[in-house]
Amino acid sequence: MNVQTIYDIINTVAPFDTQMEGDNSGLLVGSPAQEVKNIIFALDATEPVIDEAAAIGAQLVVTHHPLMFDAFHTLTDETYEGRLIRRLVRENISLIAAHTNLDRAVGGINDTLAALCGLVEVSGDDFFRCGFLPQPMTARAFADMIGENLETTVRVMAPEDRIVRRIGLCSGSGGSEWHRAVEAGCDAFVSGEIKHHYALAMADAGIAAFACGHFETEEPGLAALAEALQNSLNHVESNVRVYVSAVPAYSFPRRP
Amino acid sequence: MNVQTIYDIINTVAPFDTQMEGDNSGLLVGSPAQEVKNIIFALDATEPVIDEAAAIGAQLVVTHHPLMFDAFHTLTDETYEGRLIRRLVRENISLIAAHTNLDRAVGGINDTLAALCGLVEVSGDDFFRCGFLPQPMTARAFADMIGENLETTVRVMAPEDRIVRRIGLCSGSGGSEWHRAVEAGCDAFVSGEIKHHYALAMADAGIAAFACGHFETEEPGLAALAEALQNSLNHVESNVRVYVSAVPAYSFPRRP
Amino acid sequence: MNVQTIYDIINTVAPFDTQMEGDNSGLLVGSPAQEVKNIIFALDATEPVIDEAAAIGAQLVVTHHPLMFDAFHTLTDETYEGRLIRRLVRENISLIAAHTNLDRAVGGINDTLAALCGLVEVSGDDFFRCGFLPQPMTARAFADMIGENLETTVRVMAPEDRIVRRIGLCSGSGGSEWHRAVEAGCDAFVSGEIKHHYALAMADAGIAAFACGHFETEEPGLAALAEALQNSLNHVESNVRVYVSAVPAYSFPRRP
Amino acid sequence: MNVQTIYDIINTVAPFDTQMEGDNSGLLVGSPAQEVKNIIFALDATEPVIDEAAAIGAQLVVTHHPLMFDAFHTLTDETYEGRLIRRLVRENISLIAAHTNLDRAVGGINDTLAALCGLVEVSGDDFFRCGFLPQPMTARAFADMIGENLETTVRVMAPEDRIVRRIGLCSGSGGSEWHRAVEAGCDAFVSGEIKHHYALAMADAGIAAFACGHFETEEPGLAALAEALQNSLNHVESNVRVYVSAVPAYSFPRRP
Amino acid sequence: MNVQTIYDIINTVAPFDTQMEGDNSGLLVGSPAQEVKNIIFALDATEPVIDEAAAIGAQLVVTHHPLMFDAFHTLTDETYEGRLIRRLVRENISLIAAHTNLDRAVGGINDTLAALCGLVEVSGDDFFRCGFLPQPMTARAFADMIGENLETTVRVMAPEDRIVRRIGLCSGSGGSEWHRAVEAGCDAFVSGEIKHHYALAMADAGIAAFACGHFETEEPGLAALAEALQNSLNHVESNVRVYVSAVPAYSFPRRP
Amino acid sequence: MNVQTIYDIINTVAPFDTQMEGDNSGLLVGSPAQEVKNIIFALDATEPVIDEAAAIGAQLVVTHHPLMFDAFHTLTDETYEGRLIRRLVRENISLIAAHTNLDRAVGGINDTLAALCGLVEVSGDDFFRCGFLPQPMTARAFADMIGENLETTVRVMAPEDRIVRRIGLCSGSGGSEWHRAVEAGCDAFVSGEIKHHYALAMADAGIAAFACGHFETEEPGLAALAEALQNSLNHVESNVRVYVSAVPAYSFPRRP
Repeated sequence: MNVQTIYDIINTVAPFDTQMEGDNSGLLVGSPAQEVKNIIFALDATEPVIDEAAAIGAQLVVTHHPLMFDAFHTLTDETYEGRLIRRLVRENISLIAAHTNLDRAVGGINDTLAALCGLVEVSGDDFFRCGFLPQPMTARAFADMIGENLETTVRVMAPEDRIVRRIGLCSGSGGSEWHRAVEAGCDAFVSGEIKHHYALAMADAGIAAFACGHFETEEPGLAALAEALQNSLNHVESNVRVYVSAVPAYSFPRRP
Repeated sequence: MNVQTIYDIINTVAPFDTQMEGDNSGLLVGSPAQEVKNIIFALDATEPVIDEAAAIGAQLVVTHHPLMFDAFHTLTDETYEGRLIRRLVRENISLIAAHTNLDRAVGGINDTLAALCGLVEVSGDDFFRCGFLPQPMTARAFADMIGENLETTVRVMAPEDRIVRRIGLCSGSGGSEWHRAVEAGCDAFVSGEIKHHYALAMADAGIAAFACGHFETEEPGLAALAEALQNSLNHVESNVRVYVSAVPAYSFPRRP
Repeated sequence: MNVQTIYDIINTVAPFDTQMEGDNSGLLVGSPAQEVKNIIFALDATEPVIDEAAAIGAQLVVTHHPLMFDAFHTLTDETYEGRLIRRLVRENISLIAAHTNLDRAVGGINDTLAALCGLVEVSGDDFFRCGFLPQPMTARAFADMIGENLETTVRVMAPEDRIVRRIGLCSGSGGSEWHRAVEAGCDAFVSGEIKHHYALAMADAGIAAFACGHFETEEPGLAALAEALQNSLNHVESNVRVYVSAVPAYSFPRRP
Repeated sequence: MNVQTIYDIINTVAPFDTQMEGDNSGLLVGSPAQEVKNIIFALDATEPVIDEAAAIGAQLVVTHHPLMFDAFHTLTDETYEGRLIRRLVRENISLIAAHTNLDRAVGGINDTLAALCGLVEVSGDDFFRCGFLPQPMTARAFADMIGENLETTVRVMAPEDRIVRRIGLCSGSGGSEWHRAVEAGCDAFVSGEIKHHYALAMADAGIAAFACGHFETEEPGLAALAEALQNSLNHVESNVRVYVSAVPAYSFPRRP
Repeated sequence: MNVQTIYDIINTVAPFDTQMEGDNSGLLVGSPAQEVKNIIFALDATEPVIDEAAAIGAQLVVTHHPLMFDAFHTLTDETYEGRLIRRLVRENISLIAAHTNLDRAVGGINDTLAALCGLVEVSGDDFFRCGFLPQPMTARAFADMIGENLETTVRVMAPEDRIVRRIGLCSGSGGSEWHRAVEAGCDAFVSGEIKHHYALAMADAGIAAFACGHFETEEPGLAALAEALQNSLNHVESNVRVYVSAVPAYSFPRRP
Repeated sequence: MNVQTIYDIINTVAPFDTQMEGDNSGLLVGSPAQEVKNIIFALDATEPVIDEAAAIGAQLVVTHHPLMFDAFHTLTDETYEGRLIRRLVRENISLIAAHTNLDRAVGGINDTLAALCGLVEVSGDDFFRCGFLPQPMTARAFADMIGENLETTVRVMAPEDRIVRRIGLCSGSGGSEWHRAVEAGCDAFVSGEIKHHYALAMADAGIAAFACGHFETEEPGLAALAEALQNSLNHVESNVRVYVSAVPAYSFPRRP
């Protein structure tokens, strides 16, 4: 089984041609023809993640965020991305990013987040999802619940005693989707990062905002993709193994 | 004493011509000739803040954020800003914004934040400040301390057991200033909002990042400006009174 | 009856979504929900016109030209438009502009102008109309006739002894429509303002040009709209009254 | 004496490198080396003017307006400019335009206009001039006077009974210079073409506007340049003769 | 028979509306109504070519390259194009250019080139053609053959002993079409000018490149158009004569 | 001795900060800290050149042309540059390009070309050089001489019997420098690639043009840089060895 085959399976779940303009999802480093035995999933291809990939003998890293957002003209140890890409090439590890295509996918990042927020009757499309809490609760109680589910600190941008029931959401830096929460008649909106002026606009519209961390709202969805891929592979009796990175968010690289 | 005179005093502390390109600091609504008895300071001119201003009989609101970021072609009740601006005109309240000029000012928003982080030997210019903690401490302990001082929730974007001592900072959505923290040899960086990819870059550079909330990192600096203005006015035996808004962040408007 | 209802009636006559790109027709100041008893029509919302509106107790001013052509970032007494808009808000007067949608409308500005030029068999669309004089006449005689009908001074940009019969026209600063007069086989073209190089091109094509004043070619069409509106309102037995401004063109404001 | 020499003399009076960006003053058609016996001055190089030039045996036409404003990719009889340029080449007539350099020049178009308006103590620079009437007079009376001096029809854009004394002016389509009239404390402003919204702004500022025709405000200044050139040539005992076009404004071409 | 008629015939063979964006094919100088007795075809309207046209009494020059690529604002002897255009006008010679429309045309420049390369089973569209050599040969032998057919020097950009059989081509500065040669499975590519980095990319793809000169790859196609036109004219029993320029490439003008 | 040291020596001869805007000279792939024993110089980092570098155990390739002209977003085997860059990283070979900085340098590419053209009294700067032949000769004879010296085929774009003596030149695709040849009073101009319309303009100006091949006009200058570097290294008693690539221009890669 080679990189191209894995790419094709991911493409079935989260088609790469659904990525947003300006995104850089796809095969970023390596070769479609490379043989794969072990795959590791991580939110970002940081140095600790590449260490981990090398340690488990992975030939492929699948991340949510593309390592290269901006185009580059050189590939040297003098830049952060240069060091990491050169490390991947020398370790002979390929890299695939599934970014906005995975955000949008059915069963993708945002659907996973909706489940972890305890929502039922979930609807929505593109980068937005909304649903109902089984029971109304205060903003404070809702924040405590999702903080526990997502293992994160939640910033409540609203009066804490407000009652919320209809919840809109968008993972990561998804604050700009707040207007869809208005259109959908939500009384609350969950995202990773929420800019101040979006929170002001939501307050004016009577919507409680909850900022839960970029990493913490996206990492569960990536783990779900890993699981789906492992299931697919088991079906075809492949002996490829799929790992999820155990590196905590914002780990520091080990350097002398 | 009229609006122009108050404008001139603020201009001495935080000159309006030092604002960034694209900012909209200055007299936004009203008339330079308007007589002023009561002034209220607030981070934003929201509907609850204008209610409060009307309630105390203020003729002037001074905010950090400009009510109008984008230019407009109409002034009707059909838009959020339109409703607020019309309300100000009908209540005969002028509005001054001191935004990036106050961020940059000596003794401004960022200097106030540095003091609340407990820093000594503070240096820096423009939107960046750095200084030392009197004693090294863990990232966790530092986060607890500033959380208490700023009355906020702090997101620690780093391993919590790291020791920090040299701290860089920029209030509000100041994450992009992290590179100055690198140049200054900091081991930690404090801001209101910190985007995920800035936090990744800081982790790679071995800098611990602390996201403390946009409102909470800026509101104290605005209160300090109010106090400075009151002091100035007392010197000239003016009977103008200066208030600081008591409206909590992200309050909802009272509507039927 | 409220502002929105009046807007809807005007929209039937001159649909606002037919305005040109870059125009700013529509509800510019005020609130759709405002109750209306008296309406005044004027070419421009100048200070003397707002004085007049206040004097007759109008809740709505309808103009041809939008008060705001350029977007604005502040609303203060320091600018011409700022002063006028603030005055409207304080007097609680709404403002609707029907500009290029009215130029284009059937029975709109240009059709009114065609009638005042004495044309028969009028055709054309968009901003252009053309028709025939019942009898051929010299350029000088035609200029005298329309000068009298429009109560204006006419600049004849052609040899005065030329005979004209087929007349094209476009109100206001409509000189650029001259090429349509060529296509339509006209021997004369009437507008409010005609730039020199358009007049040269017309002379080369053997077309006589007549510049009749921006105000004078448009004001009659606005009065016609007022009349149409009054008729509509009479049909529904409304007791709303419609006035046409009596302020002469280019009146000076009364100031101490 | 050749075209280059005439160009150099005009350059002394109205230096070509003082033309505005985007203007196209200079030698437009022909050859610097061409021998010149007869020169004709005209506001525009129209077909009747080229007929006249050919009739008097001119080798050089000097105009105010450049024949080519826009760049061209073809030179055929299918366009207006193409036909005229080809005619000039075939008649072996060179063409020089002195446009914005002549507007700005000392003793140029605007200074000539100031004299014809009867102004004394004239000052100003660039495209603006202002001065005093020896005696105050009504707007109506002033309009009558300049209408007679310029042999034109004057549109008075102000109440006719206003008293004017300090007069600002800019020839041609110079309405945008009205703000300089404000800065100079004028109570009246004269130009060739004045757009409606400039006239409104002037009315708001209490300035009476007078639109006198593009051709009529510029033609006298061009005739003055012709006279100055003839005087220069007489000094060097040249037998070159200088003519001023007798073709009326907006004449039609003679065509079968 | 006039210029328009000739234009129409050429338009049948190589429709002018198929020219590339930014090209300037069509009637460039002259008049559609001009009577034509003699026509001369040349790659470029240089001074020696215009001398030749005048010598044979041509009223029309047809070239491949447009004399005016860039738009111009003046028409004087001070520029290269100005001198040539003025010469054409004075000699009363019209000028038509058939550039990218002729490159693309069936039986046009590229089809003529394919024939001269000895290709069979020619296919392709737009600016690209490909076909087979009847027998495989070495790169060196192929270069010698086309050098002789095109009367030119050929630069071989490949190992000379490579065997070539399937040949792609694009006349003039057509090197950028090399990617079509890859798609078509060619082992060689012929053009007039081939930039170094295109040649490198071809070498990497195993394609031998042959640079044969801009003039030499295009001139035969123009001669073919001349012949086709003469045939068309003979059919209608016209007595118009068609010549092909005998001026060698890059001839110098005769000047004192 | 490491890559940085070699970079610094090249920087002395051809300072990298003198490169043109848009160029990409400098350290393109690898690490400044890498130890270097063997260096190979080549015009381009093609696959045959990297084979050669690997074969001789080079840690550094120095080329004239940057491998990456355009920025890239991925680094995979699916693109030409991707394959080559990945190969360099895996072979642990660094890559430096000295492009427009070497063209401009004293003793650089253009000075080497001037010597090979047999010029004396060479002057010039930037990308242009000019000088005299010791004896005048015909264009044909000059072409034969430089063809032999540069081991290339020369395209003569002029009448072959013209006498040339003062020669301007610019290596590579330097045809646009022809205007400097005019300014310098040259009667001939030598370059690698010369576009047709530059050659036409030169013919009009009476200058004979000689197109000698991009590779052939630049390769000698790169060999000269290699020699200069070896001399520098010998002076410091380094045991680093410098090679010049023996791969012919436009070699094909060896592939199964």
